[in-house]
Amino acid sequence: MQQLDTTQPNFARDFTRVVEERRDADSDVAGVVQDILRTVRTGKDDALVKYTQRFDGYSLIDDADWVITAERCKEAFDALDAEQRDALQLAANRIRSYHEAQLPKNRDYTDAIGARLGAIWRPVDAAGLYVPGGRAAYPSSLLMNAIPARVAGVERLVVVTPTPKGNSNPLVLAAAHIAGVDEIWRVGGAQAVGALAYGTDRIKPVDVVVGPGNAYVAEAKRQLYGVIGIDMVAGPSEILVVADGKNDPDWIAADLLSQAEHDPTSQSILITDDAGFAALVADRVDVQISQLATQKTARQSWDDHGVIIVVNDMEAEAPDLINALAAEHLELAIDDPEAMMGKVRHAGSIFLGRMTPEAVGDYVAGPNHVLPTGRRARFSSGLSVLDFMKRTSFIQLDEASFGAIGPAAATLAHAEGLPAHAKSVELRLK
Amino acid sequence: MQQLDTTQPNFARDFTRVVEERRDADSDVAGVVQDILRTVRTGKDDALVKYTQRFDGYSLIDDADWVITAERCKEAFDALDAEQRDALQLAANRIRSYHEAQLPKNRDYTDAIGARLGAIWRPVDAAGLYVPGGRAAYPSSLLMNAIPARVAGVERLVVVTPTPKGNSNPLVLAAAHIAGVDEIWRVGGAQAVGALAYGTDRIKPVDVVVGPGNAYVAEAKRQLYGVIGIDMVAGPSEILVVADGKNDPDWIAADLLSQAEHDPTSQSILITDDAGFAALVADRVDVQISQLATQKTARQSWDDHGVIIVVNDMEAEAPDLINALAAEHLELAIDDPEAMMGKVRHAGSIFLGRMTPEAVGDYVAGPNHVLPTGRRARFSSGLSVLDFMKRTSFIQLDEASFGAIGPAAATLAHAEGLPAHAKSVELRLK
Repeated sequence: MQQLDTTQPNFARDFTRVVEERRDADSDVAGVVQDILRTVRTGKDDALVKYTQRFDGYSLIDDADWVITAERCKEAFDALDAEQRDALQLAANRIRSYHEAQLPKNRDYTDAIGARLGAIWRPVDAAGLYVPGGRAAYPSSLLMNAIPARVAGVERLVVVTPTPKGNSNPLVLAAAHIAGVDEIWRVGGAQAVGALAYGTDRIKPVDVVVGPGNAYVAEAKRQLYGVIGIDMVAGPSEILVVADGKNDPDWIAADLLSQAEHDPTSQSILITDDAGFAALVADRVDVQISQLATQKTARQSWDDHGVIIVVNDMEAEAPDLINALAAEHLELAIDDPEAMMGKVRHAGSIFLGRMTPEAVGDYVAGPNHVLPTGRRARFSSGLSVLDFMKRTSFIQLDEASFGAIGPAAATLAHAEGLPAHAKSVELRLK
Repeated sequence: MQQLDTTQPNFARDFTRVVEERRDADSDVAGVVQDILRTVRTGKDDALVKYTQRFDGYSLIDDADWVITAERCKEAFDALDAEQRDALQLAANRIRSYHEAQLPKNRDYTDAIGARLGAIWRPVDAAGLYVPGGRAAYPSSLLMNAIPARVAGVERLVVVTPTPKGNSNPLVLAAAHIAGVDEIWRVGGAQAVGALAYGTDRIKPVDVVVGPGNAYVAEAKRQLYGVIGIDMVAGPSEILVVADGKNDPDWIAADLLSQAEHDPTSQSILITDDAGFAALVADRVDVQISQLATQKTARQSWDDHGVIIVVNDMEAEAPDLINALAAEHLELAIDDPEAMMGKVRHAGSIFLGRMTPEAVGDYVAGPNHVLPTGRRARFSSGLSVLDFMKRTSFIQLDEASFGAIGPAAATLAHAEGLPAHAKSVELRLK
């Protein structure tokens, strides 16, 4: 962890270094992914068999080896203890409610010259959802990705997930049952993303692929962007907590660690105007880490990427720091979070006040937990139903409205050196 | 041009070939672009000087060589003849009106358990707009890209454009004056996109880059996606005209040619249920091509990529063909275009009826002419104000609402093996 103070002479330089630090894995995955995608495109199911054996130690032989059935998901759901089942169901219901209100409205109107104009939103035909295997197999992520697709009206919702040595996570299967997934294929990695984009013998292609994954999965999505739609380029998670000295240092320490425990490359940053409080939080972070089952990850994340920034004047200094960091999660644990939110231009999601820890947003609040990382909140948004929909504009003219604007179109077409454009208008003007 | 008939035994095979044909340039631009971007990132202005000399034959020496000033744009506007000025102004006004109604609404509500939830839309801070030099320097494209950014509320709107041997297009400068562009830099190609993404000594970085360009520009945008937001991966333009035998074959021929004249890789397709009409249109296309100043391009496009499909039963057969092609532009020159539109799932923009040639949509109708190509209408939309905005969700709980959903969050955190998540909730529940 490094501590900065805005009154230090080197603050600007040190803060810029924090802002510009790249925490994404810089390994040479691009070439490997390119090979895998090319192989899957031509080799189809055979290529999936080969890669799944190699990377997951799992044999795809009979048809039944390829899929996890709806019955199996239902069994996993029925086997949950009541507390977990109720929690998942509460999460699903709240996520659904929040996202239903995101559904965009169509437009259809006739303007002053009599031109009918509009736009129609429709869901994509099919969406693919990547669900990681192993440590990062989160039922909450399945709900956050699948429910917006269902709300959007996507007819075919396909999950791909690696099942290392045949193992799958029953909580994830239960979540798939709740969300209502149509197909689950036991393939993972870049090869699974390639299968969804190009289609294979067994797997029909989809239009959009979403969901978290490792560096190979992320790179496969990036390379296939344009062949398919994707949710976003995702990086390690991050939290920025803005807290005054009136907070319980234990609460804030736990909030910082709730991101640090995700991944060694995750980042937790505290901005406070109370140096004494900063010291208390740093102390509580160290104590809490030692009690965590995730301590190894959290320790490395906090040591390597944790930052505490002490400011002189919260109101005057925090907004610029917040906007420069453009964090995925922003907690405002201060007296007047509303005023501060008014000055925030860039953040994935904002958690207002002392009783809104980021973790409630990960699970049950309702808004999506798939959010832009790595300062991408400057230009991108969290996952929503819009990621599973597209808009078709339309135009309808009659003789009068065509007569009103056609001549200007012909003028511009000639000016641009496009005579066939002009002719298609002029023939109708005669 | 190839003609297909749905009654032919090989129709399914031939049609699939049309659908799957890739018309994008397949040259090896990726490596070249990667080099250019790396060089611009480290070499900054010096790299731009070098590439601009090499590719555009233009020397960037003094500060004044780098920019086209607002005064110069104003002069270009003032020098327009009245007809062109009025046409550009009409286009700008209609584009602005259509896009103003796209502005999304913020959400802020308190739900049944007392949780305050919502989302705030904000413009990006800065947007870059690529404007091609040479043949494809279209004032209409500048308006279609710049006006939505302005409507979104983007504060800094930057144009980059190559000026080969120092030449620029006065109509484009006039359009920049009308749209209100803040900066115009005389750089182009992949190096200009790199400059916008990374920033150089003179050029401050932007958050989103939009606008058409050649294969190098498109590849640069694709490689930088994630560093910046981009509009889309664009390919050659295309039109699908669905026309019955009651149309004037000359009108339909001109409509087909209005896309063919754009580029040798553009595609024009006619679907009709009248074989005699198909023959008349094919004949008129040949006659009209010979009269075009753009005949070389149009000829090549029509010969290589033009398709006429004769169907037996328009109502029964056309919808599936339309949806498989997912065309950028779809003209419905039939008696009941409304009924057909109801069956269209995938299209960039639809032009309804016999008096709505696609060319009016290119210029003056109002909806955006930047539309998804290459079957990407299956999952993506035309350019809109949303491409220049992003959404921040927010959550605010009090003790009661936190008490209502906090326990479920803790249950799920434990189930996912994330104890710090659970702790940040449980500390507050005590």
